[in-house]
Amino acid sequence: MTDRDTRHQQSMQKLKAHVDDKVANATEERGLLMVFTGNGKGKTTAAWGTVTRALGYGYKVGVIQFIKGLWECGERERLNDDANLEVAIMATGFTWDTQNRESDTKACQEVWQEAKRMLEDPEIYLVVLDEITYMMKYGYLDVAEVIAALENRPAEQTVIITGRNANREVVAMADTVTEMQETRHAFNAGLKARRGIDF
Amino acid sequence: MTDRDTRHQQSMQKLKAHVDDKVANATEERGLLMVFTGNGKGKTTAAWGTVTRALGYGYKVGVIQFIKGLWECGERERLNDDANLEVAIMATGFTWDTQNRESDTKACQEVWQEAKRMLEDPEIYLVVLDEITYMMKYGYLDVAEVIAALENRPAEQTVIITGRNANREVVAMADTVTEMQETRHAFNAGLKARRGIDF
Repeated sequence: MTDRDTRHQQSMQKLKAHVDDKVANATEERGLLMVFTGNGKGKTTAAWGTVTRALGYGYKVGVIQFIKGLWECGERERLNDDANLEVAIMATGFTWDTQNRESDTKACQEVWQEAKRMLEDPEIYLVVLDEITYMMKYGYLDVAEVIAALENRPAEQTVIITGRNANREVVAMADTVTEMQETRHAFNAGLKARRGIDF
Repeated sequence: MTDRDTRHQQSMQKLKAHVDDKVANATEERGLLMVFTGNGKGKTTAAWGTVTRALGYGYKVGVIQFIKGLWECGERERLNDDANLEVAIMATGFTWDTQNRESDTKACQEVWQEAKRMLEDPEIYLVVLDEITYMMKYGYLDVAEVIAALENRPAEQTVIITGRNANREVVAMADTVTEMQETRHAFNAGLKARRGIDF
C-alpha cells in the first residue's frame, strides 16, 4: 500500500466511525416536518423527488400545488397513473397573474380544505404542501391554522413544505430545514426555461 | 376594493412586469449544466425530481450513481419500469465502507465509461452524475477528463451534477448552481432515517 492509500484508509475509517456513531444515536422514529426554502432552484423538485421515492415503496402520497398547479408539470404527468398519488391543485394561476386578493384567497381556502383532509389521514405517509409559504405570506392562509393542522397530524406522517421566505413559526417546528441558495441561475444569463428540466 | 387589495394588486403588477421582462430576455435554448451542492438535504432528491419530470415528457434519461448505488432507492424502484430510463451503478458501497482506494478507483473508472457513453449520446436528454463530486475530490476521476466530457456533450443535453464540495472548475462552467444549505437536519436530533423519505 502506498502512503496515499494508507492515509485515505485512515481518513475513511475516521469518517465511518463518525457516521456509525450518528446512526447509532438516531433511534427515534416518526414522521418528519421538512422545509425546502431559499431563493435557489430545487425546492419543488426535491419535493417531487421525495414523492417518487415514497411511491417507490408503495406508500400513499398527497400533493397540494398552491401555485404552479395550472402549469405543465412533468412529474405529475409521469406519476399520475399511480393509484397511491393524489394531487390537489389551487384553481388559479400565479397570484401575480390574477392580481386579485379576493379570488386568490377563495381558491386558496378551497384547496386548503383538501390539504386539511390529507393532514388528518393516517393512511397518507407523505403530504407535500408545495409553495404554501406564499399563501401564508400574502395572508391567504392563517398561519395559526396551518401550524395547528401540522401539529395534530398523524405521528407517522411526513410533511414537506416548499417555497421562499418560510415563516419563523414553521421553521421553528421543522425537523429538517434546507435553504436552497441560488449561486447562479441560467435564467438570469438569458437561457430559456426548458421543458422536462425546469417544468 | 380595500386599500390592502389595491396595494396587493399593485405589488403583483410590479412583480409580473419584472418576471415578464426576464422571460422576454431569456431567448437562448440549449442543454444546461446544473450543480446541486452544499451540505444540506435535497441534492440527489432534486436530481431524481428532475428525472421524473423529464420522463414525464417522454425524454430519455441516464443516471449514474457513484456512491449510493447499492443502497435501497425508492426513486429507482418507482421508475425502473420506464424504458426511457437507464441507471448505471458503481459496484461498491460507500468508500468509507470499503476503505480501499485501489478497488474504489477501479469501480469508479468502470462506471465512468458508462457515463462517458451517455455524455456522447444526443438521444439522451438528461444525464445525472449523482455524487460525482466525491470521485473528483478523492482522485478516483480525473477532473480534466470530466470537464472535457461535459464540454463536448451534445448541445441539447442537460447534465446534473450532485454532491458536496463541487470543485471550482465544474462550478465555473455550470449554468445553474444551487447550494443546499443545512439549516437543521432531523438526523442530528436523533431521528432515524426514514424509508421512503430519506432513502
